[in-house]
Amino acid sequence: MAENVNSMLSDESCEVYHSGASSVTDTELSDLLVRVPDWSQGDIDGTSCIGRQFGFDNYREALDFVVRVGVLAEHYNHHPRIVLEWGKVSVTWWTHAISGLHRNDFVMAAKTDLLIIN
Amino acid sequence: MAENVNSMLSDESCEVYHSGASSVTDTELSDLLVRVPDWSQGDIDGTSCIGRQFGFDNYREALDFVVRVGVLAEHYNHHPRIVLEWGKVSVTWWTHAISGLHRNDFVMAAKTDLLIIN
Repeated sequence: MAENVNSMLSDESCEVYHSGASSVTDTELSDLLVRVPDWSQGDIDGTSCIGRQFGFDNYREALDFVVRVGVLAEHYNHHPRIVLEWGKVSVTWWTHAISGLHRNDFVMAAKTDLLIIN
Repeated sequence: MAENVNSMLSDESCEVYHSGASSVTDTELSDLLVRVPDWSQGDIDGTSCIGRQFGFDNYREALDFVVRVGVLAEHYNHHPRIVLEWGKVSVTWWTHAISGLHRNDFVMAAKTDLLIIN
């Protein structure tokens, strides 16, 4: 049976951040991007990030999704940039403290995906 | 007693949009911007818009504000772009159907301000 690598990533919790934490390496980045295939790497004001746009049939459903992502963010104390427009929501994760991507961002991306699936 | 012009604008309802509606004129724009002094004119993908950033002490308060703006948007069937980040929310109004600014956008901006004041 094929391994559901995305679900496994989503089962992880955010690591407690410590001051010596560093961004993912290029090798880790490649591996992690495969595990959240609907997410793309980009940059936001020069900082590396991952983002995904979610589509909805109307504003109400999009707003409800924003609330679910917001509650998730509060639970794990890791907060994304969320852009709400009619019928679509863009979610972008990165780790402010290191001005780049940490494994936590990919864990949160996988958890975000589950808010749609479930 | 000074006239509270912002409140008066916020008391208006959105006009029902009709196909012949056009963007505000330069004169109307100048007048309306004075009435929502915390908002700035800008452009989003080349379309004229008005935006304001609101600050909050934490993510929870920012998320609550997003919900209030979203409910307001649904009520008037006029929907802004909302960007949520930790401690701040940016709201941008424009009228998609005319690819520009309509009086409705300024009415909605004034109503948005009241979500903070009240």
